[in-house]
Amino acid sequence: MGFDAKDYLNERKKVVNSALLEYLPPDKPQTKLLESVIYSIYPGGKRLRPVLCLAASELVCGNHDGALPLACAIEMVHTYSMIHDDLPSMDDDDTRRSVPTNHRVFGEAVATLAGDALLTDAFSLLAKKLPQNRVSSELALRAVSLLADAAGSKGMVLGQAFDLEMNLSLPSEEEVLNTYLLKTAKMITASVVGGATVAGAREDELRSLQFYSEKIGVAFQIKDDLLDSHNAADKGGENAQKHTYPSLLGINAAREKVFELTDQAIKNLAVFEKNPNPLKEIALWLSERDE
Amino acid sequence: MGFDAKDYLNERKKVVNSALLEYLPPDKPQTKLLESVIYSIYPGGKRLRPVLCLAASELVCGNHDGALPLACAIEMVHTYSMIHDDLPSMDDDDTRRSVPTNHRVFGEAVATLAGDALLTDAFSLLAKKLPQNRVSSELALRAVSLLADAAGSKGMVLGQAFDLEMNLSLPSEEEVLNTYLLKTAKMITASVVGGATVAGAREDELRSLQFYSEKIGVAFQIKDDLLDSHNAADKGGENAQKHTYPSLLGINAAREKVFELTDQAIKNLAVFEKNPNPLKEIALWLSERDE
Repeated sequence: MGFDAKDYLNERKKVVNSALLEYLPPDKPQTKLLESVIYSIYPGGKRLRPVLCLAASELVCGNHDGALPLACAIEMVHTYSMIHDDLPSMDDDDTRRSVPTNHRVFGEAVATLAGDALLTDAFSLLAKKLPQNRVSSELALRAVSLLADAAGSKGMVLGQAFDLEMNLSLPSEEEVLNTYLLKTAKMITASVVGGATVAGAREDELRSLQFYSEKIGVAFQIKDDLLDSHNAADKGGENAQKHTYPSLLGINAAREKVFELTDQAIKNLAVFEKNPNPLKEIALWLSERDE
Repeated sequence: MGFDAKDYLNERKKVVNSALLEYLPPDKPQTKLLESVIYSIYPGGKRLRPVLCLAASELVCGNHDGALPLACAIEMVHTYSMIHDDLPSMDDDDTRRSVPTNHRVFGEAVATLAGDALLTDAFSLLAKKLPQNRVSSELALRAVSLLADAAGSKGMVLGQAFDLEMNLSLPSEEEVLNTYLLKTAKMITASVVGGATVAGAREDELRSLQFYSEKIGVAFQIKDDLLDSHNAADKGGENAQKHTYPSLLGINAAREKVFELTDQAIKNLAVFEKNPNPLKEIALWLSERDE
């Protein structure tokens, strides 16, 4: 009878994957570039950001139809950021989700271009498909603006630049939290606030959701670090050179911070009367997950 | 009394540069990322694409006010493409416009991110500033769509992927022309058709301008190759390994093609009665330039 966050996430992941299959058909890519794009989009992971986008839309207007193109565009932008982050000049990662990274399969040049293509095509998708899904031009334009701001020079890209710098010196807790806000929470915020926006949310609802998603976004990154440091310890600590919240503040302080942020996030959902509230349950699940 | 294309280009370049200074203030960039962005945006070159955008808008509605944000967004996307094209994994260029390329100054990671930031911020600019310049949300969304399609996986990025492949085999004339259409003409088309779109052009005007700009776009790239091969010959032929239209078809055939395409382009301007027509004069100037 209770609400199962994991079931909900899995169900909505299927919805996201169906929509992606429609927008980015994986069968017989005609060019190496598209092959490289498809390689990184499928099969994908939790599809957390697009699922949050659908959940926020459902919370506001009861369905997620209008939010589907935005959810997929967000996943495309997220995927581009993973491809570029993995490049040798950045984090220089050889594997992601247990398979070789894009540039290890297609080479650096094609991987860079595949990222560029995903980022660009995401905006084409928004501009074309949101109106087809009966989102007004005004709201569609707000979605473009939200996504671009979350991903651009004052959002995720700046966070990635700070992340690279963070390893060159000893950052303060404030600097780490700010980097996490930029590199992770901004895109999670665009997902939640964007999904609510195209659903026609009121300004007070949007403010609450912005606060909620900034908190869960930072908590999500710290939790990721905790899981990574656990896995790295298993593998002999190969990630030890990277400065993270847990490596700088300690495992216990990091765990504490995840619960504190999650608690603050949930309190901000009070404006919504829906019970159970999927966003609350997802926040709790994220803070307790072991994957 | 006659219309001087070079004067027109210089005058409109000043207009573009003023608008860029407003949207991307170069004073005291707060972050290394922004410093890297500013480094590649200023002082800039001819600003050809944004000037074409303004010219097309003027041709349709008599002024370029609505087109200014689009003109600047196009220059940002063009600049991102230059930064990424210059990367070691791509064309591996050390200088551009006689100064060190972005990655030679800021390193590959920051240069990659600066390109990503410019591409993303371009869409934020469109979504925010076009409505402020009294372009309707519908037309602003069409501008987003036009720019994303011109730059994305079926446009410029695909052209760049083909360009990299072109050096691995001996391409046919048709393959070279298709690569030039994608890597160069698509963005020139977005400039011209986009400028006309936000000015409220009719469908028949847009069709004529699309044809015009595809022709001058390909002609522009062949002319660039001719100028490059001339300069490379002066410097001892350092560009000789790259397959281009002139290197494959010969200098004379390339010159011939530039004039043929320019002629076809100009014929398509007949729908516009304005005389002199700046787009006609720019096309002629581009085909005859020596810079």
